[in-house]
Amino acid sequence: MSDPGEAQARAEAARDAMFANDRVAHELGMVVSAVSPSTATVDMTVTETMCNGLDVCHGGVIFSLADAAMAFASNGLGGTHLASDASIDWLAPARVGDRLTATATESARRGRTGLFQVEVHGPDGVVAIFRGKTKMVSSDGPAPAPS
Amino acid sequence: MSDPGEAQARAEAARDAMFANDRVAHELGMVVSAVSPSTATVDMTVTETMCNGLDVCHGGVIFSLADAAMAFASNGLGGTHLASDASIDWLAPARVGDRLTATATESARRGRTGLFQVEVHGPDGVVAIFRGKTKMVSSDGPAPAPS
Amino acid sequence: MSDPGEAQARAEAARDAMFANDRVAHELGMVVSAVSPSTATVDMTVTETMCNGLDVCHGGVIFSLADAAMAFASNGLGGTHLASDASIDWLAPARVGDRLTATATESARRGRTGLFQVEVHGPDGVVAIFRGKTKMVSSDGPAPAPS
Amino acid sequence: MSDPGEAQARAEAARDAMFANDRVAHELGMVVSAVSPSTATVDMTVTETMCNGLDVCHGGVIFSLADAAMAFASNGLGGTHLASDASIDWLAPARVGDRLTATATESARRGRTGLFQVEVHGPDGVVAIFRGKTKMVSSDGPAPAPS
Repeated sequence: MSDPGEAQARAEAARDAMFANDRVAHELGMVVSAVSPSTATVDMTVTETMCNGLDVCHGGVIFSLADAAMAFASNGLGGTHLASDASIDWLAPARVGDRLTATATESARRGRTGLFQVEVHGPDGVVAIFRGKTKMVSSDGPAPAPS
Repeated sequence: MSDPGEAQARAEAARDAMFANDRVAHELGMVVSAVSPSTATVDMTVTETMCNGLDVCHGGVIFSLADAAMAFASNGLGGTHLASDASIDWLAPARVGDRLTATATESARRGRTGLFQVEVHGPDGVVAIFRGKTKMVSSDGPAPAPS
Repeated sequence: MSDPGEAQARAEAARDAMFANDRVAHELGMVVSAVSPSTATVDMTVTETMCNGLDVCHGGVIFSLADAAMAFASNGLGGTHLASDASIDWLAPARVGDRLTATATESARRGRTGLFQVEVHGPDGVVAIFRGKTKMVSSDGPAPAPS
Repeated sequence: MSDPGEAQARAEAARDAMFANDRVAHELGMVVSAVSPSTATVDMTVTETMCNGLDVCHGGVIFSLADAAMAFASNGLGGTHLASDASIDWLAPARVGDRLTATATESARRGRTGLFQVEVHGPDGVVAIFRGKTKMVSSDGPAPAPS
């Protein structure tokens, strides 16, 4: 873990392996625009199918975006990390066409437990704040993507 | 609000209006199997496209199911209610083919603010516990579904 | 665990052992008015020293009351259970002289992990809703109170 | 609000007014070691009376410390701000004699609603992470301390 280049390569390999297998991320049009050990940025554009009858994006879709950012950030550390709990505050609506960016950072770590904060921003500022907890359940990382 | 039959009819009308416009609920195959003023039950079967590479259902999908149950329960009260924040604890994995049932009940109310608890059960017991808060933003209910 | 009378006796013994050593509970004037395996009720009267300059009870004091109810409920199951996280929604202020009652019940259990919901009521209705998670860290219960 | 010196003076005046009236803060030996508009640091040493029978500090006491830091940070902005909800993750125990430092910062703001993150550190690292939400209920600040 002491070589920064190696740690970064591991984070990128974990991203590739996870992303290849993540059908929800693909369906929602997510892009992992940055990753490092313990941080990740995931982007997505709000589409009509993500919205309710008032063309406001479902809270669960914004939650899924933030949850994905936490998954890439935590698994970027090496090993397999699963979320045990999370919370979200929705501060402003997101609408069709809005480009949303979720940025996950690690707030604290004690052993196998990590706490992450994810900020979701849209074109007019912050949309939601997400907080989640992960547990490392295995020292093996995500399986590589099928070639 | 004093006539129970009228309140129940209002809850069912809100369900119909919301469900008709909810593309996420349709795409995920959700069914609103019961609704009353302040309670709702929503069912869904886990499919491959909801899962990660390990065939475990995404936490965000389970969150969306619970969030939908809260939306139907709160808007069943009359008026338009939006979620301001929510939290979830995932207690067991859900897998492809599992039928999940989310049951929302109101824990407390103070004026326009309601607190809801949602239990998500699968074939082997509880899968997740969700807690959310709603605010009534309008005394008008959801717009009726287009005929 | 199969004998209800034995389980109830164990819950009461845990309450006695914990309460004897809990200086915060004593200082705040808490009374454990009921306990069973997985449930507990704790009462407290709001005093001037619990309040801010507006004679409104501190949110942290209400949190402590709810947290105590969860501790008695979870340790009433047998073994030693520690809280790992918790959240609270304050719905109405509590004032000097108000008698508050916190009632803890178990919402869900998976192995060593328990989820609890605690409702705090005052003379005018619900004051706060608390949700917490516990982990059983030992199969031994709290040490008996010194005689 | 545009003069930084004036904003800082307002934050310090709010701290003085609140602290003078806060009997819980005095009883627990809290010291407000830093304050600015939207940030605050509060310190406290764990004493025997804050602990359970195992000489581990009560979670509710750590919560109260973090909650106080959020109160000084939010009211430092001008106006009166009340907490509506909060959550805490306890990551490591605190013991008798430990000096704890709670540092509150604003994560996001939308109108009258502010989200705060509070980190509680002890001599061996992070002890707890707290997240809370405040609402500005009046544009008047806390009443000045009696002279």
